[in-house]
Amino acid sequence: MESAQQQATVDLLSVLAYGELQAFQRLSQDALLSPDLAGREAVTEMAIGEYGHYKILVEGLRARAKDPMQAMRPFMTAIDNFHKSTSPADYPEALVKIYVGDGIAADFYREVGTYLEDDARDLVNEVCDDLGHSAFVIPTVRKMISEDRTLASRLSLWGRRLVGEALSQSQRVAAEHEAMGELLVGSTDLAELGRMFARLTDAHTARMRDLGLNA
Amino acid sequence: MESAQQQATVDLLSVLAYGELQAFQRLSQDALLSPDLAGREAVTEMAIGEYGHYKILVEGLRARAKDPMQAMRPFMTAIDNFHKSTSPADYPEALVKIYVGDGIAADFYREVGTYLEDDARDLVNEVCDDLGHSAFVIPTVRKMISEDRTLASRLSLWGRRLVGEALSQSQRVAAEHEAMGELLVGSTDLAELGRMFARLTDAHTARMRDLGLNA
Repeated sequence: MESAQQQATVDLLSVLAYGELQAFQRLSQDALLSPDLAGREAVTEMAIGEYGHYKILVEGLRARAKDPMQAMRPFMTAIDNFHKSTSPADYPEALVKIYVGDGIAADFYREVGTYLEDDARDLVNEVCDDLGHSAFVIPTVRKMISEDRTLASRLSLWGRRLVGEALSQSQRVAAEHEAMGELLVGSTDLAELGRMFARLTDAHTARMRDLGLNA
Repeated sequence: MESAQQQATVDLLSVLAYGELQAFQRLSQDALLSPDLAGREAVTEMAIGEYGHYKILVEGLRARAKDPMQAMRPFMTAIDNFHKSTSPADYPEALVKIYVGDGIAADFYREVGTYLEDDARDLVNEVCDDLGHSAFVIPTVRKMISEDRTLASRLSLWGRRLVGEALSQSQRVAAEHEAMGELLVGSTDLAELGRMFARLTDAHTARMRDLGLNA
């Protein structure tokens, strides 16, 4: 029998893996929204980076004697739904999704990772540290905003929508996967859980501010 | 003033570069046609390989003081048209397009490459040698054909259509880009040109046979 922590570890690696595989897919298409070649290359190279993470995570699942496809399947709907409801309409929206979405996902996975065994935590941190490749987004979005007065408010709204959708899909995943929920709730108290959400929210607000937007 | 050979070199690197960039785009989407994760990974990794080639070729253009976007622009329509008219309907069609399309493209570029200066030829060969990563297609298509009697004739037809579209777009490119046409016609005689097409056709027939199909 697997311990609850082992099950939670496999769950976390699986949701991360499928998330990265879909991120590759979405980003490789979002790259076409860029009006110039430099942007198309930057987004494509992010997509390829996400696929690299996917491979690392799938190795982690295989090392735990899990079939990656079977392990990822329970998380597909939540991640597919997230992307379906946050399909960027244009390049500025795609850039904000990259920066804000990647950031909040990395923060969340790292927080959960602190409750895992060492080697799983290292794996999660390795993948998440690398998610910082979206820095190119900052100057680009700032420039776009400075040239279009109405864009900032539209993108601020878009940022809120991204967080809302991410939260609602995360709640769904946590509710449907007891081990993961218990890992969080059982390893900590409600006050610590509250502090975790405060940390996530603060970091999100800071990222929006990086882009010149209101959270 | 650029010599006709310099112009032809830039043309060839440009059409190859845009071809690889679009190949990344198409393959990263075609990967979704695979019914299993192994196929999805194999096609995705081919896509990423094509993007690597694109980067090499773009470096080659920059080394020749060319702006890649401007250099690629005249070739976009032909390559976009090729893909629009050969969008695979399912996974078997995607696999045949990968194997047959990559093969004939690599052969053609290599043939033209023999007429270029050494360093450009090396660049073209480096990229084309690497196009052999489609070997995984052979056992997969052969297995599919053995399980579905009508598939072989549909895929044989599909192979002919791929070649027909590739030829008609190549003719268009050659007609619109004098330097490239002259490089071929001027550096050789009609008999050699005929032999070149015979070599391309033979290699295509051999590839179709690899897959268990008629050319």
